[in-house]
Amino acid sequence: MNLLEALQWRYATKKFDPAKKVDQKLVDQIIDAAWLAPTSSGLQPFQVIEITNQDIKNKILPIASNQHQVADASHLLVFAAWDTYTEQRIDSIFDYMAHERGLSPDISKDYSDMLKHTYLNRPAQPKEDALPMEGFNNFDHAARQAYIAFAMSIAMAAELGVDATPMEGFDNKALDALLNLKEKGLKSVVMLPLGYRDSANDWLASLKKVRHPKDEFLIEIK
Amino acid sequence: MNLLEALQWRYATKKFDPAKKVDQKLVDQIIDAAWLAPTSSGLQPFQVIEITNQDIKNKILPIASNQHQVADASHLLVFAAWDTYTEQRIDSIFDYMAHERGLSPDISKDYSDMLKHTYLNRPAQPKEDALPMEGFNNFDHAARQAYIAFAMSIAMAAELGVDATPMEGFDNKALDALLNLKEKGLKSVVMLPLGYRDSANDWLASLKKVRHPKDEFLIEIK
Repeated sequence: MNLLEALQWRYATKKFDPAKKVDQKLVDQIIDAAWLAPTSSGLQPFQVIEITNQDIKNKILPIASNQHQVADASHLLVFAAWDTYTEQRIDSIFDYMAHERGLSPDISKDYSDMLKHTYLNRPAQPKEDALPMEGFNNFDHAARQAYIAFAMSIAMAAELGVDATPMEGFDNKALDALLNLKEKGLKSVVMLPLGYRDSANDWLASLKKVRHPKDEFLIEIK
Repeated sequence: MNLLEALQWRYATKKFDPAKKVDQKLVDQIIDAAWLAPTSSGLQPFQVIEITNQDIKNKILPIASNQHQVADASHLLVFAAWDTYTEQRIDSIFDYMAHERGLSPDISKDYSDMLKHTYLNRPAQPKEDALPMEGFNNFDHAARQAYIAFAMSIAMAAELGVDATPMEGFDNKALDALLNLKEKGLKSVVMLPLGYRDSANDWLASLKKVRHPKDEFLIEIK
């Protein structure tokens, strides 16, 4: 399937068949799509947690308002963003980039200094009285990058014919505690249970996909 | 190209060839990928603005820190999120969904009432003293949905061999004013200039793509 066919095919699966497991090779590709996703300045400020442990999936069930896809999923991906940007985190990726490209670490010093000036002076968390160009905080910025990767995994799963349920509605703090994310400097953002639809028992499986009419979605300036 | 090949091929193009225009049929597919992107509760809280007018592109250039891809792009896409959720906006999509599915508008009343209870009681903009489960505001939530669509357009462009420059670094307020977005209840979030790379004059074109080592990116819980 190409991407448009895949996006037409996919839907937010409400019922997985718990007996059907997704081949690990397909899951690896779904994770690779997230890994290759573009991010602001290439900082890649998030990690993916791949959960196959049934006990942990069961513990996440009540954290996710008992949406049973979490426990029925063959693999559960959690996207967790950096709680903030730090000098060490910025240096680490720029040093690694220079090393991998066979360049001097100094080559991007001006650019990484500029990023540090911006990010290290920006609040880690939301702040109400932010100035016009600073109406943003580091965690929310990192979380937005995680959404790009999340979307790439959704797209990859669909292209591979793997069902998925993009999921925001869960208790982030409880999940962070369960997965010990705080000590890793991470905060959970979104989850993506993967599996195969149980069409006969999924009320959404047969319903038409609906989007806003195109002329209410697109504004053309010619 | 499948998605993984496309993600390996693409990069944040720094120099477009202004003489090369992207075929409108390809741009339409890139917009369709955004249009089909999944969003929270299917609300699709954003619009895409497609700009081909050279005068407008030139006016955006200083708003985007003179990143010349904005003016050299064949097509410039702007992703703009709802400034907040409203009762009218929520009713509109649920009514349309029921109509398109041949269902009674009442079928999703409990669900849309629950959404209204959540969203209409949540601040439109960031608030510092938010309670644990309310640490979010409507615009940022809508903006995150726009990022999913943004990623789908990035993926689609790459699969079609069209170059693009995912772009956050611009003066959102100035762009909103230029495009009259406030009166539409929208705020700009990200831009995606589309075109074809000028490899000979693009310093990034030949550099190796670098991502965090996989074992620093992925956490497995087996």
